[in-house]
This record gives sequence, C-alpha cells and structure tokens, in this order.
Amino acid sequence: MIQREELESRVQRLQHQMQVNDCQGFLIMQNVDLLYFSGTMQNAQLYVPIQGQPLLFCRKSCERAGQESPWTLIPVINYKSIPEKMAELGCQIPLRLALEYDVIPVNSYLFCRKLFPQAEFMDGSSWIKHIRAVKSPAEIAALRTAGKNMALVFGQVAGMIRPGISEMTVATEVERLARQFNHQGPVRLRAFNQELFFGHLLSGVSGALASFNDGAAGGPGPGPFYPQGSGSRLLAAHEPIILDYVGCFDGYQVDQTRCFTIGALPDNVYHAFQVALEIQEAVTTSARPGVAPAALWNIALAKAEVEGLKDHFMGHGTDQAKFVGHGIGLEVDEYPVLTRGFNEPLQENTVFALEPKFVFPGQGMVGIENTWLVTSSGVEKITIFPDDLVVID
Amino acid sequence: MIQREELESRVQRLQHQMQVNDCQGFLIMQNVDLLYFSGTMQNAQLYVPIQGQPLLFCRKSCERAGQESPWTLIPVINYKSIPEKMAELGCQIPLRLALEYDVIPVNSYLFCRKLFPQAEFMDGSSWIKHIRAVKSPAEIAALRTAGKNMALVFGQVAGMIRPGISEMTVATEVERLARQFNHQGPVRLRAFNQELFFGHLLSGVSGALASFNDGAAGGPGPGPFYPQGSGSRLLAAHEPIILDYVGCFDGYQVDQTRCFTIGALPDNVYHAFQVALEIQEAVTTSARPGVAPAALWNIALAKAEVEGLKDHFMGHGTDQAKFVGHGIGLEVDEYPVLTRGFNEPLQENTVFALEPKFVFPGQGMVGIENTWLVTSSGVEKITIFPDDLVVID
Repeated sequence: MIQREELESRVQRLQHQMQVNDCQGFLIMQNVDLLYFSGTMQNAQLYVPIQGQPLLFCRKSCERAGQESPWTLIPVINYKSIPEKMAELGCQIPLRLALEYDVIPVNSYLFCRKLFPQAEFMDGSSWIKHIRAVKSPAEIAALRTAGKNMALVFGQVAGMIRPGISEMTVATEVERLARQFNHQGPVRLRAFNQELFFGHLLSGVSGALASFNDGAAGGPGPGPFYPQGSGSRLLAAHEPIILDYVGCFDGYQVDQTRCFTIGALPDNVYHAFQVALEIQEAVTTSARPGVAPAALWNIALAKAEVEGLKDHFMGHGTDQAKFVGHGIGLEVDEYPVLTRGFNEPLQENTVFALEPKFVFPGQGMVGIENTWLVTSSGVEKITIFPDDLVVID
Repeated sequence: MIQREELESRVQRLQHQMQVNDCQGFLIMQNVDLLYFSGTMQNAQLYVPIQGQPLLFCRKSCERAGQESPWTLIPVINYKSIPEKMAELGCQIPLRLALEYDVIPVNSYLFCRKLFPQAEFMDGSSWIKHIRAVKSPAEIAALRTAGKNMALVFGQVAGMIRPGISEMTVATEVERLARQFNHQGPVRLRAFNQELFFGHLLSGVSGALASFNDGAAGGPGPGPFYPQGSGSRLLAAHEPIILDYVGCFDGYQVDQTRCFTIGALPDNVYHAFQVALEIQEAVTTSARPGVAPAALWNIALAKAEVEGLKDHFMGHGTDQAKFVGHGIGLEVDEYPVLTRGFNEPLQENTVFALEPKFVFPGQGMVGIENTWLVTSSGVEKITIFPDDLVVID
C-alpha cells in the first residue's frame, strides 16, 4: 500500500507542472502511472484537477481500488460517463486537458476528445516522467531490496555456469530464482513495442547479435517471434558470458549486468571489460546533484574513444545505442537518459542504471551495469553483487 | 521463419480490406502485426500499398529484418524519412492512410500525421483482427504443439498439489516447466493496460477475487503493484484450485484452465463445475462455420440461467465478465469474441478459447477452458489435457 502522504505529494508535484504549463486537468489512464498517482492499478482512470483532490473513476474492481487508493472513488460502467459524473460532483470541465501521449493508444485519445469536445488537448507524459525520476524513501527502500535479492540470485546461479550447458537452461534457472526472491514476473517498459522477459544471458557471439530493442545487446531469442534474449547456444570456454537481469521488489526494478567466463578471455575482450569498469568509475565519480546526464554520457564516450574502443561502445556498426544509462523504477526506461541532449541536471534521490558495454562481432559483448542512487553529494550503488569478472576454472 | 507465400496471402487479404474501405496505404507499426505481415519483429515499420509489394522501413537490426522478411528492405535512421524514401522508390504518397488505432500510442499517430499532411487517416485495426482470426496450416501446427506442451506441463505439476503448499510455489513451478517446454516467456495481449504472466493458479477465495483484468478471475497477485494472479495463500482441502495458463510455441498461444481439488468439493461448487462442462459441450456441439459467436454466448448464458447460476457466471456482482470465449493466437485477446453483438459468423480455421467459469464469493472459482479449432464441420479441441476435475486424495 502506498501511503496517503506520498500520493498527495506526487499529485501536488503534478499539479505544479500543470500550473506551469497552463493545463486545467490531467486524465491518467496508463496502469503504472495510475498506480503511482492513485495507489491502485485496477481498471480505473484518475482525473487530476489543477487544484484539489483527484477523482478515481473505476470500472473494476471498485472494491480493491477503494481499499488501495485514498482518492474519491466513482464507480462507472463505462468511461464515457466521466464528464457527466464530474458535473454532478461540481468539478469544473477542463478546457485544457493533458493525457499521456507516449503510452495511451490512439483510440483512447480520440474517445477522450469526443468526451471533452470543448477542450484543447496536450501531452503531459514528460511531466510525469520528470516527477517519477526522483524517488521517495519508500521507493528507494523497495529498490534496495530488489538489489539485494538480485545479488542472491546471481550468487546462486554462478555455480551453474559450465561448458556445454545452454543459455536457455541457465536463463530458466535465473528466472526461477528471481521468482523465489519475490520478483513479480513481468518486467515493465514504457516505450512502444519494447518488451523484456526478466533480462538475458548471452554467451559469445550471441552477445554481439543486435535486435529491435533499445540497448547494446539483443541476442537471438527462441526465434523471429521473440527475437531477443537467450537462445539454444551452449556455453563454451574463453568467451564472455553476460548476465543482464532486471530485479524487482514491490513493483520497483533494478538493472544489473555481470560478466562471467570459463577460463581466460581473449585479451581485447578483457581489456574492454576493464575499460567498462573504468568508465563506470569515471562516471560515478562525477555524478551528483546538479550534473547534466549528457555530461556523464560525454565522459563515457570520451573514455571509450581514448581507449580505441569507440566503434565497439554500446553496440557495433549501425546498431550502436546512443546512451550509456537510463532512469529506472516502476518502469525500466525512465528518466533521466544518459545521452546527448539530456541536460536537465541530476537531482538527489534520482535512480539510474549505468551500463557501459562493448560489442565485438564474432566474439561477443562485455561490460558492467549497476543501478545507482543519487545522494546529496554523489551516488551510491544499490545493486550489490560484486562487479568483478567471474572466472570459472 | 514465415514462408513467403503465407506472407503474400496475408498482405493480399489486407489489401482486399483496404480496397473495400477505400484506403490507399497502411503503415503497420505494432510488433505483433509487423511479425504477422512482414515475417520480422525487428525495429521496423511496414508500409502496405493498396496494390503491389510492401516496403519494410527498418531501424534495427536491418540484417535480421532482411533475413526474416521477403519484402523490400529500406534501412532508415529515423522514421521521418519514410515519405522521402517512398518518393525515391516511386511509391505513391497515400491520401487515405490506415494505422492501428487500437495499439499505437498518440505520439506515433501525431508524428505520422505530420509526415503525411495531405492524408486522411483511418483506423485499420479491425481489418487486421479479422484477418488474423483465421489461421493457416503453419499457425495451426504451432498451436497444436503449444497445446501438447501445456498438457505435459499440467501432467507434471499435478503431483505438486498438496495441502500447505503456497499458490506462488506451484505457480513458479508451472512457469519453469512451461519454459522447459519451449514457452517464449512473455504472454502477449493486445488490449491497453492488460498484462499477464503465464496465467495463474488460484485456490479457494483467491479465485473469487476480481481484478482489473478482463476475465472471470483476477486473483490477489503479490500486491497492488501487480494485482492479479497467484498470491501467498496456502492450498487447502475441499476448495477449488484453478490452473489457468497460456501455453505458447513459436509465438502461438493456447489457453487452458483445469480444476483441481484436495478431497471433495462443496456440492454447489461441484455442481457448477459439471455445468461448466455441460456449457462447453453445448457450445462446442453448436460451433461450426457460419454460426455467430454471439449465438454461442447466448447458449452459454441460457444454460447458466437454467441451472440457477446466472449470478455466478463469469464473475460475480458488478465484476461479471460479459463474454465466454475469445480468439487466440499471437495474442491472447484476438477475434472472435464470444459475446453479445459479435455476429460475424465463424469461419473454418478460426481458433478460440472457450472458458465457462463460475465464481462463488467466499468459496472460489470453478470452470473449464480449452482452445478450439473451427473445422469444416465443427470444432476440434487442441488443448488435450483431460478435462476432468483432478481429485487429490
């Protein structure tokens, strides 16, 4: 259960954004945003007026929504009755209404335009992303637990890694262990068409196989119908084995990548792993409130270039990703993005994953990823499994 | 890999719908529709002209998209270059352009309106849903394999069910077994805000707990952040234990629900289970090409009413679901829907899940669900695990 005071603070921050943007109301529809601002993820829509308390219009289950959310609950059969119910409650009909343009489908938008024919519509999704980037103590506590649980999972799975076992066999065991340590199951991403099943274990050339997903690694997956993640490849000696997994506790997600190898890695790959650690060190030494995420991206890119690894950084060829980190929480792809142009300074209690990685066609991928909390003076690592390359004899 | 002839046939069926609806082009963006019409699920958009071959605009990975799809591949850095690339290729700029309004986000729609300022836009999602409802031999083969695999999973998990074991413990084992039998992991739903992690095991009162999801059952889940599915409840004697799971092979999904009990069920619950079997029998005896799905819903509802179970059918109170079956394939919520108003007659090779269920507050849920293939003269069950109530001594 999310505390009332926390929900009030979130709504107030949204109302502040609405004032700044001359917006009179926000109708929140997406399940994760709904949870964040109302405390419930039932079939409901949350109307946030420019001032005063939100109204929670709920189709199903009203009983659960009423238990989980402190806001006024208005049961509805169909969302088309929202304007009528608002009028009954003496709530002003908004003339400038915000929606989550980045996630709601066109049909919901057109439906809403018919409901409020006098209104001018606007995209409020970036306000929500900025608000959600800064975490509360309760959110940080859940993220810390997710980090601890993921360390336990990685600790147990390390013993399974041996020549001849398939990627998918080990991946299935990671998934089982994650579930044992209270992972909710679904990994939530915000961007259209992105999906992820826990994460992936990729070995050797699999790690160099790009896919549709936004990131350095893709992987073969089981086939064109799910073209990412682990495949049937058997683990072998002297090649990088990457475990990139999303831990989760109480809905809050952390991102963690570690590199394993059976015997020694080729020199160039080992060197790149060391550079990834150095980039992590350089970026996290500089990260603190007031620093622009774009400046951290520049640090990472410059270091990769100095080491002669620019062409391998975050992918290869035309498939290079153009970021080195991302905010994370209820969704994996939150604000801030550590990329060119993202200049809004870091704030205390922002949480981001930093993932310097290098891709070598024909050899695979190496790198490191941790989830970091921005403190008052720097950053703190909350994915606590040791960073070292795990070498299996 | 999807065969070229199959992709050609799918595109031709779409072009027929476009002709009927006076539409000049369709820009397909959603990952599942993209796979269905192009053969690949890479980061790409497929332009289908009113006649002639589609154009596949691809961002990442072009190499994989080129291997998987027979259509002309046009690598792009950004989708804003689509009109320019179309002009270069001598492709006519459409004046009436269809998009998938049910799944693409508002931002993609507005972006597209800017790209084609002269065009009138229309929603083509229902054409796609109608086309996808009728399965090819290759699709049916994958669905059959999914059904066989899910029977193996249920066969192995039955031995775990005993008093005192938690829902989540058994659910985690179902998930592991499903993965062993080549389940891709993610269960795909089309409707906004719907998500599902394999399915659920619900015992006793958990089965009567409604949630946001469209269906008879919800379940507690681990908390408000994932408010459906199995929870921490311990299995006990004399209450219904429902296993409702989505099997999957090569992207194709089947839906299967079975009922277990430790010792005898209460009489009213046992009676309802028998009625669910009778409804399944009545509906599947009537189902064949030419019959309206709405007529099958009427059969089911009438039978529930005759048996005095109307108030418990597909949920309870205000949370009753208003359907008894749904098409299934690459997504779990496909056409047809067995509900009031869905009058378009069944066609041969349509596949649907039929799930008569009864909910008793304070006691739980019982019912049956199978996935059925419409043949030339009737229907055939493709989820082959025995229907019987499994009674554990």
